[in-house]
Amino acid sequence: MAEQRSTAPLQNATLCQIGFVARDGARLAGKFARLTGLPVPEPVLTDGFEKAHTLHRGTPTPATAKLFFLNFGQVAIEIIEPVGAPSTWREFLDKHGDGVHHIAFTVGNADQSAATLAAEGVPVVQSGVFEGGKYIYLEGEKELSVLLELLEFTSP
Amino acid sequence: MAEQRSTAPLQNATLCQIGFVARDGARLAGKFARLTGLPVPEPVLTDGFEKAHTLHRGTPTPATAKLFFLNFGQVAIEIIEPVGAPSTWREFLDKHGDGVHHIAFTVGNADQSAATLAAEGVPVVQSGVFEGGKYIYLEGEKELSVLLELLEFTSP
Repeated sequence: MAEQRSTAPLQNATLCQIGFVARDGARLAGKFARLTGLPVPEPVLTDGFEKAHTLHRGTPTPATAKLFFLNFGQVAIEIIEPVGAPSTWREFLDKHGDGVHHIAFTVGNADQSAATLAAEGVPVVQSGVFEGGKYIYLEGEKELSVLLELLEFTSP
Repeated sequence: MAEQRSTAPLQNATLCQIGFVARDGARLAGKFARLTGLPVPEPVLTDGFEKAHTLHRGTPTPATAKLFFLNFGQVAIEIIEPVGAPSTWREFLDKHGDGVHHIAFTVGNADQSAATLAAEGVPVVQSGVFEGGKYIYLEGEKELSVLLELLEFTSP
């Protein structure tokens, strides 16, 4: 038991985001802001390939996204409006329309956790870097009925 | 602005749950436990109508559910396996299969928040009581692309 706990890929991970994909991110973000009384978030545009090194299904992609964040303490609602393609965000939107795309966990070593998750039937679908960290999306739909995101923040 | 914030139905609400519906709750709960290193949760069976006073679309229903909780600090993953019908859980399962059913907020006055949300296009679909509190589900799919749950806990 102790051994299994020590090797779990999300051991001590912090559940930090519920990620929505939306065709019109500003509309959905504005609606959540109105209902919660939180400030209407400004969009953040993700970097292009030259900075983000975005890989989708193992292949470089020029896809980006507009992100909107609403913070609720430990956990944030992230709203993602896909810009360009291909990406896991665009795939989700084409298949499902607006909805909950992923839940995100902050981990100490995203690559190591992703390798263990892949061995558990939850393979990588997209990855990239951002100012201050890196992310990996995993196709958890079959095993967990939702995608996972791993977030690894570099020390400041 | 100050006035709008003071009347927002989810003003100061705590985002406390991500709720999944699953055909086999024990399987999904076991998988999350294995990947996070958390204890495998025991199922909690919700009360029948005589105690829970469950209303679905305004009508009493005998539907219940098996619940499994995995706690991540402020927020829990709740996994719901519908037992009987009709319920919002069964409707979701029939329409979508396993997946994220709702996000839940703890509020001070669930009825008051629900009335305001209904006026914002997010109507009530199901409600009930449990030992220590009450819940109300709202059909947020059109406006928010997810259902909402309001949780109101009575003081101990």
